[in-house]
Amino acid sequence: MKRVYNFNPGPATLPLEVLQEAQAEFLNFNNSGMSIVEISHRSKPYEKIHNQAKADILELMGLGDDYEVLFIQGGASLQFAMIPLNFATKENPGSYVLSGTFSSNAYKEAAILDVAEIAASTKNDNFRRVPNQDELKINPNAAYLHVCFNNTIYGTEFHYIPETGNVPLFADMSSDMLSRPLDFNKFSLIYAGVQKNLGAAGVVIVVAKKTFIEKSPDILPTMLRYDTFYKKNSLYNTSPAFAIYIVGKVAAWIKNSGGLEEMARRNSIKAKILYDVIDNSNGFYRGHADKSSRSFMNVTFRLPNEELEKKFVAEALNNNISGIKGHRSVGGMRASIYNAMTIEGVEALADFMVKFRNA
Amino acid sequence: MKRVYNFNPGPATLPLEVLQEAQAEFLNFNNSGMSIVEISHRSKPYEKIHNQAKADILELMGLGDDYEVLFIQGGASLQFAMIPLNFATKENPGSYVLSGTFSSNAYKEAAILDVAEIAASTKNDNFRRVPNQDELKINPNAAYLHVCFNNTIYGTEFHYIPETGNVPLFADMSSDMLSRPLDFNKFSLIYAGVQKNLGAAGVVIVVAKKTFIEKSPDILPTMLRYDTFYKKNSLYNTSPAFAIYIVGKVAAWIKNSGGLEEMARRNSIKAKILYDVIDNSNGFYRGHADKSSRSFMNVTFRLPNEELEKKFVAEALNNNISGIKGHRSVGGMRASIYNAMTIEGVEALADFMVKFRNA
Repeated sequence: MKRVYNFNPGPATLPLEVLQEAQAEFLNFNNSGMSIVEISHRSKPYEKIHNQAKADILELMGLGDDYEVLFIQGGASLQFAMIPLNFATKENPGSYVLSGTFSSNAYKEAAILDVAEIAASTKNDNFRRVPNQDELKINPNAAYLHVCFNNTIYGTEFHYIPETGNVPLFADMSSDMLSRPLDFNKFSLIYAGVQKNLGAAGVVIVVAKKTFIEKSPDILPTMLRYDTFYKKNSLYNTSPAFAIYIVGKVAAWIKNSGGLEEMARRNSIKAKILYDVIDNSNGFYRGHADKSSRSFMNVTFRLPNEELEKKFVAEALNNNISGIKGHRSVGGMRASIYNAMTIEGVEALADFMVKFRNA
Repeated sequence: MKRVYNFNPGPATLPLEVLQEAQAEFLNFNNSGMSIVEISHRSKPYEKIHNQAKADILELMGLGDDYEVLFIQGGASLQFAMIPLNFATKENPGSYVLSGTFSSNAYKEAAILDVAEIAASTKNDNFRRVPNQDELKINPNAAYLHVCFNNTIYGTEFHYIPETGNVPLFADMSSDMLSRPLDFNKFSLIYAGVQKNLGAAGVVIVVAKKTFIEKSPDILPTMLRYDTFYKKNSLYNTSPAFAIYIVGKVAAWIKNSGGLEEMARRNSIKAKILYDVIDNSNGFYRGHADKSSRSFMNVTFRLPNEELEKKFVAEALNNNISGIKGHRSVGGMRASIYNAMTIEGVEALADFMVKFRNA
């Protein structure tokens, strides 16, 4: 079977072992005579998957039972609205760090509700970097400080955890969740759409301090309340079982591979391979991100001109390299090198980059 | 491979051909070298699936291009909130027919927003039937009349399309969508979670008149606005690609099987087989639903006592019959016989029912 090197930003490449397992048991899950997509979300075999996925995520993050894992549909974009709906008011607004497209979208949803303020923005730097700690203007009355930890489109990532004093720290980790160890206890709420680093599109993982999610405002619709998902173990209504099942397999794959330390080791190697090619190209490849903010997940770079960029994309495809075109707001190239991208795949891209430059 | 007769109410049995196709191409979709869960939602191969699924659904329903198909996450439960948020006000409230659990839940979400009224209820009849046309008290100023067309838990179904005058008709068809031809042009908005009749949990299909969904109220969050999904072809953010892919395969399977007429023919045969066993059992099996409201999708019945009911469930399992236990609010048994349940499977259940009664 031909398998390409898939550098798409999400949906993205998944571990081949996970896909093979899912395929092998697709018609007969757990010897039930049913597919995983046919079994009841109220059945014991499903509950086991559901709860094991939750437990593995907490274990990988080094979090205790003061944290809860929720599975919610609607993508990170629905979280952009649920967060201010559940937590922010005019008196205690959400405070937002603008470091790229998705953090700006998160801010906009809070602004629709008129409960938003901006703690910092690097828009004037064309989002080439994330703000430094001393640039963060955190309102001490803020309900939370919201950051997007890795900016998929611009290829930047936080290399420090913001100090927020008494203000709870919330983070969108859609594009770097479970990619490296962090002191996750410093966060009150973390969320991630799974389709980049963790699985198949269709579910968001929310990891939150239980004290934060046990009581939502009275007037909210049931499906927009974190306490609905918390009290019902994310099974108030039919869960997106297949997406959660794949998340569980990916979490198990991370555990079996050596956990977040090993993911970080591999991801550092992969990122270094590509950034070295960029830095050693005499300016042929120009990284978009400032070196201080370079992402371990999304490597963004330009070529000398757009004609060469088009040629690069086309020739890459002939070399079994797919999904390399950058987002239109940055232009050029983007190599998304999430957990499941192999070092071999990154080496293939690096070799191609060197050859292309020398051609 | 052992395959059980799966009478679960949802997630539910799917056509074996659909599962086999999905399995066969799971590692290499469309010769792309990627899995369907790895390909970009912005890619041409994905868009083709997405748009073909939409077109097939409209074609099956006999609807023209004044209708649009949306794919939204969050289950029917999120629709319960989105509908009043998008359409109802205190002056023009949503009017609800209460015919079971889910229609009551839909009403509750509108009531949270204080924009709900009740057009009719059969709660005092323990939801054994749906209301008749002449029981519907429709406020002429209502934004819509909301009905749940098939009541999964109680096993009842509308056998007529309510006449609503100038009030738009909205229907939750989660458990009978695409199960039979109807004059769908009489509805302004129809929605269905796909995990009963149409696919794998993780997406809701909304079929609506375009004039209804082209402009949502200004202050709504982006992901709760029907116009977001309409304007962006349900691709504002990453779509639940796998769930939509399976819906597309199921819609194609219905088309290739002969369309809704053929589904209705098979479903009538299946329902008749089971209702005949009930009606010819000298009262051993007692149907929950009044005959006038019997569902073609969910056949609910009790046995003489709970001990026999427990025994029935256990022995059914030994006969390769799964998912037959009823919902706790009705008790007894429920056989969900959606499109994908074969006549052979229903005959196996009927044979078992006869044997069990005579044992």
